[in-house]
Amino acid sequence: MIDKQAIEDIKKIVKTGRVLTEESDRYSYSFDASFGTHLPDVVIQTQEVQELAELVRYANEYKIPVYPRGQSTSLSGGPLPVKGGMVFDLSVMDNILEVDDEDLVAIVSPGVLTSAIHAAAEKKGLMYPPDPSSSHVSTIGGNLAENSGGPRGLKYGVTKDYVIGLEVITPQGEIIKTGGRTVKNVTGYDLTKLIVGSEGTLGIITKAILRLIPKPPSSETVMAVFNSLVDSGRAISKVLSSGILPAKMELMDQASIVAVENYQPSNLPVDAEAIILIELDGHPAAVKEEAEQVAKVCREVGAREVIVPQTPQEKAEVWKARKLVSPAIVRIKPTKISEDATVPRSQIPEMCRRLQQIKEKYNIHLVVFGHAGDGNLHPNIIADKSDIEEMQRVEQAVAEIFQAAIELGGTLSGEHGIGTMKAPFMEMELGASGLDMMKRIKEAWDPNNIMNPGKIFAEPGQKLVLR
Amino acid sequence: MIDKQAIEDIKKIVKTGRVLTEESDRYSYSFDASFGTHLPDVVIQTQEVQELAELVRYANEYKIPVYPRGQSTSLSGGPLPVKGGMVFDLSVMDNILEVDDEDLVAIVSPGVLTSAIHAAAEKKGLMYPPDPSSSHVSTIGGNLAENSGGPRGLKYGVTKDYVIGLEVITPQGEIIKTGGRTVKNVTGYDLTKLIVGSEGTLGIITKAILRLIPKPPSSETVMAVFNSLVDSGRAISKVLSSGILPAKMELMDQASIVAVENYQPSNLPVDAEAIILIELDGHPAAVKEEAEQVAKVCREVGAREVIVPQTPQEKAEVWKARKLVSPAIVRIKPTKISEDATVPRSQIPEMCRRLQQIKEKYNIHLVVFGHAGDGNLHPNIIADKSDIEEMQRVEQAVAEIFQAAIELGGTLSGEHGIGTMKAPFMEMELGASGLDMMKRIKEAWDPNNIMNPGKIFAEPGQKLVLR
Repeated sequence: MIDKQAIEDIKKIVKTGRVLTEESDRYSYSFDASFGTHLPDVVIQTQEVQELAELVRYANEYKIPVYPRGQSTSLSGGPLPVKGGMVFDLSVMDNILEVDDEDLVAIVSPGVLTSAIHAAAEKKGLMYPPDPSSSHVSTIGGNLAENSGGPRGLKYGVTKDYVIGLEVITPQGEIIKTGGRTVKNVTGYDLTKLIVGSEGTLGIITKAILRLIPKPPSSETVMAVFNSLVDSGRAISKVLSSGILPAKMELMDQASIVAVENYQPSNLPVDAEAIILIELDGHPAAVKEEAEQVAKVCREVGAREVIVPQTPQEKAEVWKARKLVSPAIVRIKPTKISEDATVPRSQIPEMCRRLQQIKEKYNIHLVVFGHAGDGNLHPNIIADKSDIEEMQRVEQAVAEIFQAAIELGGTLSGEHGIGTMKAPFMEMELGASGLDMMKRIKEAWDPNNIMNPGKIFAEPGQKLVLR
Repeated sequence: MIDKQAIEDIKKIVKTGRVLTEESDRYSYSFDASFGTHLPDVVIQTQEVQELAELVRYANEYKIPVYPRGQSTSLSGGPLPVKGGMVFDLSVMDNILEVDDEDLVAIVSPGVLTSAIHAAAEKKGLMYPPDPSSSHVSTIGGNLAENSGGPRGLKYGVTKDYVIGLEVITPQGEIIKTGGRTVKNVTGYDLTKLIVGSEGTLGIITKAILRLIPKPPSSETVMAVFNSLVDSGRAISKVLSSGILPAKMELMDQASIVAVENYQPSNLPVDAEAIILIELDGHPAAVKEEAEQVAKVCREVGAREVIVPQTPQEKAEVWKARKLVSPAIVRIKPTKISEDATVPRSQIPEMCRRLQQIKEKYNIHLVVFGHAGDGNLHPNIIADKSDIEEMQRVEQAVAEIFQAAIELGGTLSGEHGIGTMKAPFMEMELGASGLDMMKRIKEAWDPNNIMNPGKIFAEPGQKLVLR
C-alpha cells in the first residue's frame, strides 16, 4: 500500500525519531493480546507532536491508514493494523508526567504507564482511581483510547470519569485542545468524552489532563465463601443496597478457584461455588464499621465462611488469589478468550445461570470471575486455537454470551472495547439508527477513513472469527 | 414561518396533548431567565414520545425549527425560540420517576423536577448528587441539556457524571437509545455524554437513566471569615491539598455579604472581605475529624474567625445566608447578569484580582460568589437594563471576564451553558479547528439545522448584546 516514495517522504517528516521498515521490526507491531496478525508497512517512533501531525496530514492526503498504538495489551484488537499503512508507536511518548497538587490534576503524555501515574499521584497523597488489571504494563494512551475500567470502577468510575482535557491530532492533522484544567466545563460539545473510548478512530491523543482525588487513608478487605453462586450474587446486591459503596467487589467462580489452587496453592476452598472479595476504603473508623456490616450481610445471605484479614500481609494474600486467576487459567489450555459483557447488577445471578447453560450447550471450558459489583463479569473461555472444531464452538458461545448480556439490559463491552472482535455485534445492541448516528460522526471527522480503520464499525458481512 | 396548513398538520399529529397557538399562550414561551424575547409560532404539550418523534420528522421535512424546553430557568438563552417555529413544552413530561435500589439507578422523564429526584432517591437511602441551585424549579431535562453543576460538583462532579443512558429523538425523528443501565459501557462512541450538555442542538431527550449512590450518613459545616479575599483563596487551595475533599466549598465576597445583610440581617460580618462555607459529608467519625482539620487550616492561613455550627438549625442558618445572595443582589438593581466563567482552582486568587480590576475599569456593580472549590465562581453584574450606557459598559466587562478566565487556563462556562449569550466567544476558547470539529457533528446529525437553531454556534458577526 505504501510505496518507496512514501517511505522517503515519511523519513523526511520524522526528523527527531525513528522510522522502522524492516520486516523483523514491523512484525513486533502486527499483533496485540487478541487475535490475528497484520503487518504494518511502516512504524514511526517520535515524541514530537508536530511531526505526528504532519504525518497525519500526509496520510490524509494519500489516504494511508494510521494506527496509533501503546503497549498493545488490547483484548479486542484495538491497535491491530488490519489495513496496513503506518503504525505510530506512542509508547515512546512517555516524556510528560506532572502532578499538580493545587489543581489536583496530572498532565501526561500517552506513552506513560498507568502504574507510573498511580505512583506519581500517591507520592503527593493523591490517587488516580482507574485501575485496569493491566496497569503495570498498559499505557495511559491505550487506557484513554479504550476507556479502560478496572475493579475500582464500582466506586470510582472508569477512565473517562477522570479525563478533563486532551490534546488531539485530528484526522486532518490539526492539533486541537479539548476541555482543560477545570472539572466544570460546558463550553460546547464534550469532545473530551467523545474521543476517550473512541478507540483511536477519531484522532490521536497526544496529551491528557487527568483529575486526581485525595488518596483514601485506610482500607479493609472482606472475603466471603459461598456454596451457591446464586447466593453470592444475592450478597452483592444486598451489600450495595445496604448503603455501603465498596471500592471493589470481585467474584471468583468455582472454576477460577480450582484453577488458582492447581496453579499456586493458596488455601482456597475448592468445593465452594463462589468467593466474593470486597475492599472498602476511606476513613479508618468508617471502613472498620463497614467491614463488619458487610460481613454481617454476607452471613445473613448464606455465606458459609466470612474472613476479614487483619494485617496488610493477610489482605495482600487474599487479593493475590484474585490476581492469579488470569495466569492460572491459561495453564489449562493455551488460548484464552476474555470477554467483558456487562449486565445491570440486579441481573448478575441470572447472567451466571445463562453462562452455565452456554457452557453446557457448547461443551466449552468457561471460567467466570471479575468485577461483579458493577455487573462487569469476565466470562473467559479457555481453548486451543489449533483445534478448529473447538474454536467454532467457542465462536458460537461468544455470540450467545453477547446476546444474553443484551437481553438482560446490558452491553457487549464494559471495558475492553469493540475493536475488530465485537464490531459484528454492534447493531444487535444499538439498532440501525443508533449505529448510524455513530457512523455519521466518524464520517464527518474522518471522511477518508484513515484513523484506525477496520475498528468499531463492521465491514459488510463481517463475522466473529477466532480461527 | 409556520402557515395555517402546518398548524393543521401538527394538530393531527398531536392526538393526546395540546397545541397552543394563541399569542397570549405563546408569549409565556418567549423568554427564559436570560435576555431577549422571541415568540414561537406554536407550542406543543404532550407526554407521547411517538407524537414528538413524528413532529420532529415533520419539522425536518419542512425545515421548521424545534425548541425543546423545560422550566426555562436557563441563564444562557438555551430554550429561547430565536427563529420561531415549534416549542416542545417538555415540562408536561413528568410522568416517570422510578428509583431502582438494586441497580442503583433512577429512570426519569425530562419534565420531572430535579428536587423530586433528590427526594425520591433519599426515600430509599440513596442520593442523586448534582444539585444546581435551581433544582427546586428546574427540570432534569434542562439539567441534562445544559449539563448542570452545583455546589456538590466539587466532590461529586456534574450532571453528566450521573447519566448512564438516554432515550433520544434524533433530528430525523428516529427514537434511539444510548448507553443503558450499566455504569461500565464502552460499546462504540459515547453518545450519552455527547448529548448531555449539547443544549438541545443534537436531539430531544425523552428519558434518562441516572446513576445513584448511597446517601452519606452525616455532614459537618465550617464557616471561615477572612479580612483578605486573597487569603480566602489560599485557604481553599490549602484545604484541598491537605487530603480532604469537601462536598461543597462556597465563597461569598464582601459585596455579597453586604447585600445579604441589607436584604435579610443574618449576623454576617459586613467588614470582612470574604467568607468561605465548607460542607463535609461521609461517615460521622470522619466528618467530625475533617471539620476540625479544615478549621485548623483556615486559621493557619489567616482566617479571623472560624465557626463550626453544631446543631442542624445552626448549620441551616449558615447555608441560608449563601442561598440569600441571589435574591439579595437583585434588590440593588433590577438586572442581574450571572456569569459562570471557571478557572483552575489554583487561579482563584488571580481571578479575584482580575475581577476587581474589571469592576473598577468599567465602573460596574460586581458581586462575586459561588463554587470556589472547583474554580466555578459566579461573578454577577447588577445593572439596570433600561440604562443603555450602563449596559454597554456591562457588555464590555462581560467580554473581559471571559477573556480573563481563558487566559488563566479556564473556560467560558462552568455550568450555565453557551446558548445565545456566549456563542460569540466560542472561538476565543476553542480555536477555529476545535470549533470546526463541533460544527461537523452538528451538521452530520442535523443537516437541516432544525434542532434548537441559533444556540452554541454564533451567526457570522454575532456579538454579545444585553440591550
